[in-house]
Amino acid sequence: MGESLRGLKRTIMCGKLREDNIDNKVTVMGWVQRKRNLGSLIFIDLRDRSGILQVVFGEEINKEAFLKSDGVKSEYCIAVTGTIVKRQSPNAELPTGMVELRGEYIKVLSESETPPIYIKEGLDAAESVRLKYRYLDLRRPDIQKIFMIRHKITKIIRNFMDENGFLEMETPVLGRSTPEGARDYLVPSRNFPGNFYALPQSPQLYKQLLMVSGYDRYFQIAKCFRDEDLRANRQPEFTQVDMELSFVEEDDVMELNERLLQSVFKEVAGVDVKLPIERMTYKIAMEKYGSDKPDLRFGMEINDLTDVVKNIDFKVFQNAIENGGSIRGIKVPESAGMGRKQIDKLVDFVKTYGAKGLVWIANREDGVKSSISKFLTDEQTSGILNKIEAKTGDLILIVADKNSIVLQSLGALRLEMAKRLGILENNKKFRFVWVTEFPLLSYNEEEERFEAEHHPFTMPMDEDIKYLDSDPGRVRAKAYDIVLNGEELGGGSIRIHNTDLQERMFKVIGISEEKAKEKFGYLLQAFKFGPPPHGGLAYGLDRMVMFLAGTENIKDVIAFPKNQNAFCPLTEAPNIVDKAQLDELGIYIK
Amino acid sequence: MGESLRGLKRTIMCGKLREDNIDNKVTVMGWVQRKRNLGSLIFIDLRDRSGILQVVFGEEINKEAFLKSDGVKSEYCIAVTGTIVKRQSPNAELPTGMVELRGEYIKVLSESETPPIYIKEGLDAAESVRLKYRYLDLRRPDIQKIFMIRHKITKIIRNFMDENGFLEMETPVLGRSTPEGARDYLVPSRNFPGNFYALPQSPQLYKQLLMVSGYDRYFQIAKCFRDEDLRANRQPEFTQVDMELSFVEEDDVMELNERLLQSVFKEVAGVDVKLPIERMTYKIAMEKYGSDKPDLRFGMEINDLTDVVKNIDFKVFQNAIENGGSIRGIKVPESAGMGRKQIDKLVDFVKTYGAKGLVWIANREDGVKSSISKFLTDEQTSGILNKIEAKTGDLILIVADKNSIVLQSLGALRLEMAKRLGILENNKKFRFVWVTEFPLLSYNEEEERFEAEHHPFTMPMDEDIKYLDSDPGRVRAKAYDIVLNGEELGGGSIRIHNTDLQERMFKVIGISEEKAKEKFGYLLQAFKFGPPPHGGLAYGLDRMVMFLAGTENIKDVIAFPKNQNAFCPLTEAPNIVDKAQLDELGIYIK
Repeated sequence: MGESLRGLKRTIMCGKLREDNIDNKVTVMGWVQRKRNLGSLIFIDLRDRSGILQVVFGEEINKEAFLKSDGVKSEYCIAVTGTIVKRQSPNAELPTGMVELRGEYIKVLSESETPPIYIKEGLDAAESVRLKYRYLDLRRPDIQKIFMIRHKITKIIRNFMDENGFLEMETPVLGRSTPEGARDYLVPSRNFPGNFYALPQSPQLYKQLLMVSGYDRYFQIAKCFRDEDLRANRQPEFTQVDMELSFVEEDDVMELNERLLQSVFKEVAGVDVKLPIERMTYKIAMEKYGSDKPDLRFGMEINDLTDVVKNIDFKVFQNAIENGGSIRGIKVPESAGMGRKQIDKLVDFVKTYGAKGLVWIANREDGVKSSISKFLTDEQTSGILNKIEAKTGDLILIVADKNSIVLQSLGALRLEMAKRLGILENNKKFRFVWVTEFPLLSYNEEEERFEAEHHPFTMPMDEDIKYLDSDPGRVRAKAYDIVLNGEELGGGSIRIHNTDLQERMFKVIGISEEKAKEKFGYLLQAFKFGPPPHGGLAYGLDRMVMFLAGTENIKDVIAFPKNQNAFCPLTEAPNIVDKAQLDELGIYIK
Repeated sequence: MGESLRGLKRTIMCGKLREDNIDNKVTVMGWVQRKRNLGSLIFIDLRDRSGILQVVFGEEINKEAFLKSDGVKSEYCIAVTGTIVKRQSPNAELPTGMVELRGEYIKVLSESETPPIYIKEGLDAAESVRLKYRYLDLRRPDIQKIFMIRHKITKIIRNFMDENGFLEMETPVLGRSTPEGARDYLVPSRNFPGNFYALPQSPQLYKQLLMVSGYDRYFQIAKCFRDEDLRANRQPEFTQVDMELSFVEEDDVMELNERLLQSVFKEVAGVDVKLPIERMTYKIAMEKYGSDKPDLRFGMEINDLTDVVKNIDFKVFQNAIENGGSIRGIKVPESAGMGRKQIDKLVDFVKTYGAKGLVWIANREDGVKSSISKFLTDEQTSGILNKIEAKTGDLILIVADKNSIVLQSLGALRLEMAKRLGILENNKKFRFVWVTEFPLLSYNEEEERFEAEHHPFTMPMDEDIKYLDSDPGRVRAKAYDIVLNGEELGGGSIRIHNTDLQERMFKVIGISEEKAKEKFGYLLQAFKFGPPPHGGLAYGLDRMVMFLAGTENIKDVIAFPKNQNAFCPLTEAPNIVDKAQLDELGIYIK
């Protein structure tokens, strides 16, 4: 049983109390973090969202309150009225540590069973338990801080967008299924049995329609849904900061978003993002970092060694060249002494990316060692070392294969080596880069056709439109991703606003006129009525919060997340429903 | 075909241009509202979100632009560069009407077919056409203004909530189905075939969990879903402004929300809401207005006439009294001369509310007429007229029956008479009232059991808890609705935070322990760990926007609404999906 408030008002929150409040009579309310009974005195650490305050009860302060305080236990919810006094032995670790509350009156608002998880920062309980008792897990001060950061981020974004002329507009959650890309979540219709709504994977089509409607600048912090097998850090429902602007080109969108990011990172983390943010073409990102989301916090860039090794009589190199591939390498600092076993593991590592092997050259103080020393003349060795600007102590790792495999495996190896060397530990740097000029299309070898790299509404670069039919793979898009520390924070593009071009695009990716009409007919129809040039961008809000809160687990930034099976251990959703409900919807279960 | 921007930048929006801008060289972009060709001059009204600007092209201004401008038609999207000049004949109806733009350069960004609906304020096209071409309908300046108001409302709300210590937190859209109240939208699970998520009807349970988790003050502008047969002004998905506060009682929630409403109505509509807002108990609202959402913009309150008519030898009155009912009436001003036919229609009107008939007394200048004059003595007649304080010209309308029918039919009649008399036409008054002390439970005659009037987590009033088992119908709740001009704008309650009381509540409404556990087990479990006293409120955002935008059609305030069949004529959702998709979900269609 618990007591009612019956007019008792909280006057201040626990974490706000300071020396300025000494002699104030206050009423605080919160949860018992811990209780220590010293016989004549009982100390309670009282916790609310704002922090922890020490409360002391004693027979001489107030006997009734003292006796009652003895009955409370961890996580009881209580209200205490009393006077703030200077603390005898201050606690420098608490912001309220200079003062304490003398408990003159206590109300037990509700009792608590012993919690199955310990309510404490940096808790290390099993995820299944944390999710089942999420309401207790969410009490942890470090988790609560994340949601305060999340609130602050969305507030700053919304204010920025408002100041820059954007209207926040809601688009439907019950939409039309367009089976392209990821799997839709479906919602059976009762009015039209056998028909289904789909939950949106993004508001893409709606926001383009809003541009056609003249709303000029739209944004939305929108729930999106994908019924995918969940990789780590994916959730079936996630949140996008979504925007679209009319009468703009790439630079306009990027310039605006740089200012937005600067504002968010400054106000939330006190970080100065220098503008303009560096830009890198997709081609260079791939060639130097083997990734379209390069982590620029460290070097170890990929070097093309084909020219300097082309005369080496080593079959792997020669084969690569003959097959139109290349030989490239990275230079790992302070690793020339790496043992054979460790290097073998690296060989296994690159093999998972399709590489057939890994050549190494260790530039040791006592001379150069290499896995292919018998094929190398001294001259050739120094040729390689010079080309890659190797210093003593550097380990050179080389892959020879077709370009896609070389770049992908070296890109991954670069990150792996940074991890092993601990280069990024405690690295609080936020290193942004725009990646631009993405390929418009990628070739799906399996289906033997081109498909849209981003989505089929992305505008080709003006100078490449001429290749759209003759050499589609060569066409670059007016697309841009904003990458932070090797992760994609957001991405967008200028859209096609021209029906003819849109139809050519569909043709290239093998969507028939009929199919296009069936899927996107309303958008194509809308484009017949004076669509403006437009483009936009969308951020993954969850990822942005993860960065700013410093957590690597997406479940930490979502109040009620699902587990890897898209199941909620707290509410036990999804669940079985009444047959009558299904009858109304006209569906059977297999 | 349309031209690309290729570096052309918009410098200002159309509606912003004023005399201050004379001689400025500007570039504007927008849509052709209309074009007039005067031979040597071509005038174009150019429209963007901000307003309309007159653009003039002439051979002497720029020949190339002049010739090109002749090719554009309504709703073409164009860009024009030129110089702002003073207008020869100003247009006082346009904010930009003192100036015009001399078109020196024009780019046709895209062409337009002739739109199937006319893009104009106050358009009167059929709803089916408006929804099918929603992207054109949304171009109407009056509709665009609504979405600017909607944006402004949510912005003000969010800032207010932030300033008052609320955290905006997202709760899941993929939740657990709890078949209570309205019908859930279901989402089949692929990972657990035969299991379903449900889209939330409100974030109620999650926000209560967040209070248990110590978040103290939560809010969310949340999409909610109900699969109901759509009455007018209902949509399958709608938006709630949802909040919950810990350590509060009714007054705290109401006081905060009064300030919120004051702030919104002041900033959006310039309306001063006087605080505190009037409060009225449910009992008085029902007795005086026959409604729990009384419209206080006018009088015609219901009067209880039972005492003054109890001796009248009129069977209908006597029956009503014998059956524990009453005889009540309203006084309609300036209607004593109403003809018999019109009064007959009123009789039919009250019959739709279950009344068996309607007694009328017309207090005419030439004497009193009544449908029951043969039963009335002069004394009895003046007794009634005195009791109801009738003036000459008043028409008294009386219903005798059991109380619920009397109040409901007179409440409806009161509104109907106000409508007929045009009392509310052009009434821009915003008349708020809190309705309080709602019954906790209502008796479901069909199922012969009590059910929760709001939801089963509503706290009974302290002084009525003692009747919970013995006389449940008598128990009032700590619930409150905010009513504006006779419509419910929002409502909420203090919640039960005590497991014992919650269990008693379930028992009273016939939910077994087992059933309660199955449905709400996680909430009941959470309540075992020190839940704080808490309460909240939720507004219908769509309705709030309707009030502030002055529209009576909910479809005007939702960008992409569904029709009465929950169908979207624009995207044609819901639609048929691939059988393969259903196979993956393990469901069949009947």
